[in-house]
Amino acid sequence: MRPIRDTIPLQEARQIIDANIEPIDRVERVPLTAAAHRVLAQDVVSTLDVPPFARAAMDGYAVRAEDTFGASRAEPARLHCVEQIFTGEIARRTLQPGECAEIATGAPMPAGADAVVMVEESDADGEAIRIFTPVYPKQHVARQGADIQQGQHILRIRDLLTPAKIGALAALGHTDVDVLARPRVAILSTGNEIVAPGQPLAPGQIYDVNRFTIAALVERHGGVAVPHSTAADTVEDLSRAIHGCLRDDVLVFSGGSSVGERDLMLDAVATHGDVLFHGIAVKPGKPMAFGRIGGRPFFGMPGYPTSCLTNSYALLVPALRRIAGLPPWSPRVLTVPLGARVVSTPGRHQFYTIRIEEGVAMPAFKSSGDITSMSRADGYIEIAANTDIVEKGEMVEVRLF
Amino acid sequence: MRPIRDTIPLQEARQIIDANIEPIDRVERVPLTAAAHRVLAQDVVSTLDVPPFARAAMDGYAVRAEDTFGASRAEPARLHCVEQIFTGEIARRTLQPGECAEIATGAPMPAGADAVVMVEESDADGEAIRIFTPVYPKQHVARQGADIQQGQHILRIRDLLTPAKIGALAALGHTDVDVLARPRVAILSTGNEIVAPGQPLAPGQIYDVNRFTIAALVERHGGVAVPHSTAADTVEDLSRAIHGCLRDDVLVFSGGSSVGERDLMLDAVATHGDVLFHGIAVKPGKPMAFGRIGGRPFFGMPGYPTSCLTNSYALLVPALRRIAGLPPWSPRVLTVPLGARVVSTPGRHQFYTIRIEEGVAMPAFKSSGDITSMSRADGYIEIAANTDIVEKGEMVEVRLF
Repeated sequence: MRPIRDTIPLQEARQIIDANIEPIDRVERVPLTAAAHRVLAQDVVSTLDVPPFARAAMDGYAVRAEDTFGASRAEPARLHCVEQIFTGEIARRTLQPGECAEIATGAPMPAGADAVVMVEESDADGEAIRIFTPVYPKQHVARQGADIQQGQHILRIRDLLTPAKIGALAALGHTDVDVLARPRVAILSTGNEIVAPGQPLAPGQIYDVNRFTIAALVERHGGVAVPHSTAADTVEDLSRAIHGCLRDDVLVFSGGSSVGERDLMLDAVATHGDVLFHGIAVKPGKPMAFGRIGGRPFFGMPGYPTSCLTNSYALLVPALRRIAGLPPWSPRVLTVPLGARVVSTPGRHQFYTIRIEEGVAMPAFKSSGDITSMSRADGYIEIAANTDIVEKGEMVEVRLF
Repeated sequence: MRPIRDTIPLQEARQIIDANIEPIDRVERVPLTAAAHRVLAQDVVSTLDVPPFARAAMDGYAVRAEDTFGASRAEPARLHCVEQIFTGEIARRTLQPGECAEIATGAPMPAGADAVVMVEESDADGEAIRIFTPVYPKQHVARQGADIQQGQHILRIRDLLTPAKIGALAALGHTDVDVLARPRVAILSTGNEIVAPGQPLAPGQIYDVNRFTIAALVERHGGVAVPHSTAADTVEDLSRAIHGCLRDDVLVFSGGSSVGERDLMLDAVATHGDVLFHGIAVKPGKPMAFGRIGGRPFFGMPGYPTSCLTNSYALLVPALRRIAGLPPWSPRVLTVPLGARVVSTPGRHQFYTIRIEEGVAMPAFKSSGDITSMSRADGYIEIAANTDIVEKGEMVEVRLF
């Protein structure tokens, strides 16, 4: 047996991971309807004006502004309505002095007109229109290219495609767009005792949890979860498993980084690549390894479900988002009083799960082997390595799942 | 032309919408790998103990605790190691007094043993093991059912399936699970001038934006976006469009709720159902309608892209999440100083788009017809109906997209 004798601080682990990952450069073309919340892989320059024509910004009457100067309720301007312009149509004639055209919001301005009088400021008697207010040239008119001008740089490479940015692409007539590929994350649970849900449990066996929790997080944070079959604790099985994952961008194994003689994961990784750290001063989650295999980052997560999941939140998610080109994740934070004293382990940065009950943070942590430490929690607090006790009543920041 | 003469306050619009929607009750069964972030439609009671056997919580030696009482570095207890128990295996024999068994974390405890000595507290010389510390009964042992007990209520109907809750389902051996169906949201843009991206633009035409922005939001907030073809501004076309959407759960149309004579949407809705409001005291987004058609909520969004999208954030997203059974959405909020004075329209609740530049909230709003009012913004501030000016330097809460 080989105990983990040396651990590194959480911050150092983060730095090592950060120095050994890089944003993905693979690009794929997706339809606009599938592009939301993806990361743009191209600059977008407009090839047209939006709107492509000057249009009415209000329902009312297109006029020559000078025909309205001096108009008031007491002395309305009187104009002759020569046509009705609906959206999607263009005017048949050029407006002459003394004329106006009824126009709908969004319809193209007729030639000769330079302003719109709101319908609320007018009164119609057949084709005779009374205008109660002056308008200045360009009033209530959206000029051609007011929103987007041809040749304008609209979106930049690495922009996150929010709904509004999707809208800008649609406005320019794009049907599909180049985005960064989502990193493929190979997920594999190791351990002789691990059985996939759906199989019967033999004595000594338990169901695989980590493959499912990691996959759920990966899919949420910009990755494609690629599940692989469970590997047994033999060098041959682990080597075969590693080889099977080399088509993917990131390898996340769980289990096998503790100290049992059959924990051969580290040996297998060292054979195919480099182990960059093993053991972090966090609780839970100490027996975690990180390395590189064939140019890919390798995360060796603890086998215990809660350790695995808290380390996934703390270390895998930030790394994955950076690889995917996504902005850093900011979990929702609730600042509430702690409902019971928590004693921490000095020297280890602690992730302590919390359930919110009536506005109070109640400890939810049972043990790192218990998935219910997480599944019955609403979030977690972090307790720094140099803090040993957080008293009941202290305000804590709960990061919500 | 029929101007909107009466508007209702935003809060009243929210109440009317809330009183006319209800959580979906349709259920579907999905594989566990597709269940993350869905809403559980069943209670889950455990049919097994997790772990299903007492197991070692540490790597070390399974012992009879009483054999270690009084042990110390100076006077170690000496035990005879009779076997090695790996995970996934069960012990071949019952431990007798004076015996121990090497055991890996997660391996089943052998009969006769009641505690585990950590490997760090031991020393091996072949089968002769020296134990340097006493352990008490049950120490470093996870008892059968310590995580989850058979018959225990583990998850509740309407629980949101976070990664940890997915893990709990996996731990119980579930391969699939009943979740609430995602509401199908029919999305349709109306207007003679609207053309789908990919088509050439004839004079007077513009590309459809709202179908794409609404779909992106809907998919993000628990719905299935069901795009329908654009409908022209005729009663026949709109009626046909409404009929075509009645297989869906929610109808979201954009355009056609303003005042032009061809804005026949309200007439079409009134023919098939009820218009519950038309016109809200918000800016942008005043010409919005809401109603019910065939028992389904109908959202008549403004045609202008920015008006449509801000109202979708403000009114559609909260409604959709409630229909989908999701918890309310809390956007990330940045509290920063305003970089320039903003003059608001008294009497209308304003959604004002903001770009964050070097920690300062810069106005990004151009006009409600401009998608770039949104696509170049990072979020928006809300200005209450009774506020007319927000001064430069005032702290504002920017809700990020």
